[in-house]
Amino acid sequence: MSASPTIGVFDSGFGGLTVLRALIQRFPQARFAFIGDTARLPYGSKSRRTIARYAVESTQFLVREQGAEFLVVACNTASALALDAIEAAVPVPVLGVIQPGAAVARASSRTGDVLVIATDATVHSHAYAAACQTQGLRALEKACPLLVPLVEEGWTNHPVTAQVIRIYLDELLADAAAQGLNPDTLVLGCTHYPLLRPLIEASVPPGMRVIDSAESTAEAALRLINGRVAATAGCTNTLIRCFATDSVEKFQRLGSRFLGRPVGDVELVDLGG
Amino acid sequence: MSASPTIGVFDSGFGGLTVLRALIQRFPQARFAFIGDTARLPYGSKSRRTIARYAVESTQFLVREQGAEFLVVACNTASALALDAIEAAVPVPVLGVIQPGAAVARASSRTGDVLVIATDATVHSHAYAAACQTQGLRALEKACPLLVPLVEEGWTNHPVTAQVIRIYLDELLADAAAQGLNPDTLVLGCTHYPLLRPLIEASVPPGMRVIDSAESTAEAALRLINGRVAATAGCTNTLIRCFATDSVEKFQRLGSRFLGRPVGDVELVDLGG
Repeated sequence: MSASPTIGVFDSGFGGLTVLRALIQRFPQARFAFIGDTARLPYGSKSRRTIARYAVESTQFLVREQGAEFLVVACNTASALALDAIEAAVPVPVLGVIQPGAAVARASSRTGDVLVIATDATVHSHAYAAACQTQGLRALEKACPLLVPLVEEGWTNHPVTAQVIRIYLDELLADAAAQGLNPDTLVLGCTHYPLLRPLIEASVPPGMRVIDSAESTAEAALRLINGRVAATAGCTNTLIRCFATDSVEKFQRLGSRFLGRPVGDVELVDLGG
Repeated sequence: MSASPTIGVFDSGFGGLTVLRALIQRFPQARFAFIGDTARLPYGSKSRRTIARYAVESTQFLVREQGAEFLVVACNTASALALDAIEAAVPVPVLGVIQPGAAVARASSRTGDVLVIATDATVHSHAYAAACQTQGLRALEKACPLLVPLVEEGWTNHPVTAQVIRIYLDELLADAAAQGLNPDTLVLGCTHYPLLRPLIEASVPPGMRVIDSAESTAEAALRLINGRVAATAGCTNTLIRCFATDSVEKFQRLGSRFLGRPVGDVELVDLGG
């Protein structure tokens, strides 16, 4: 294993660039290959079998053609519905975004009650509730379908977005109270939501901790990979290649906000229908 | 030709149900077959060739399997990019949603300057600007990507939606003024927007007319079809069958708001990958 491992990162779109951003901070010497399967998004409305086929094609591209030695599935839907299929299809360690978020929530919560906000598809899968239950937590999930479009519109620090977040959180807190829960932790269960973290933190009740599953996943990757690669020197020499199956222009335009730096040239790749 | 013609209506999703609703008001005795190609939406990010293939498959289903004698393409993206391909593939008259909206704008506008709001994909195609130009109009288009998610969230009469509409319209009016335009007509270039018509009408400057392309298309269908069918009696006996290629549950749940009545059972149909 080299001191500069190649880490493959896969998403159905480009939201997973927030996970790549968190990974880069922890692996400054790594090579990264990111693929967004933009031609076939959204995965959320598709069947488990179709999602597994798409996810396997994308991750095999990262391993076979880009030489990825580790895979991070930076897509909530694929993490929820296709992690087994991906693990069976590629000969490298695979990490999803859901379990790490639940593990950090476990470490954070004193009451054992946590809240999860996510897209409609992720909430519908109940993957966070299941992962939290495995950690001995009670989780209440809420779909917040307006937040992704607000982020993609660039309104990440906009009064309308602040208002929408307050409405969603008020509803969620009222539901939690009605169910007798005493939540002290909020999990951001969507790769777009880290861009809203300041507005979300300003809206939660005092003392409630906000868990960013992109950060949690990068921490888990550090634990997984560090045992396997040689110690790294202090210099930073990150190499990043980004691929998309469609909409390269939109990826390039919006992706930089998610990555926190220019995404550079996005290469178009055809994985078939 | 029967007195109860069968009219096929096609959309990539279920927004086109607003067009079906407008058609039902004008053809109370017709049979309607509606298909939403929900498995393969959104069309907006796909190539012209792919969109044409999808649209042809859906419309052939309506003609061959449901006996449609007229076709209404209630999808802006397919109307912009695939109308020729559909006309070549089916042996019945075909009507899109873009040209009728532009024609009504022509009849409405005294200044010759019109505004169009639509999705990102529709604006990117510049199909409305082209259709308006053919009518001798100058059109300024604006993408309003938050409006579809706000409608699908059910916030059609919500203060947040009113605020978002005001922001978009203020930007559009400022752009129009900067370009020396004097617009007096606003075209709703998206099949979701009729649900926002009251909020939009409350936000436009006094005297500005709002053109609903769903209504315009139904009027055009009336002119096209009336010459070909026998005169109808006064009784209403509308028959509607709705098909979707995926997400039948969401179609059923949200579709009723668009149709203004229960959509009833939505039948799942497989058109292939």
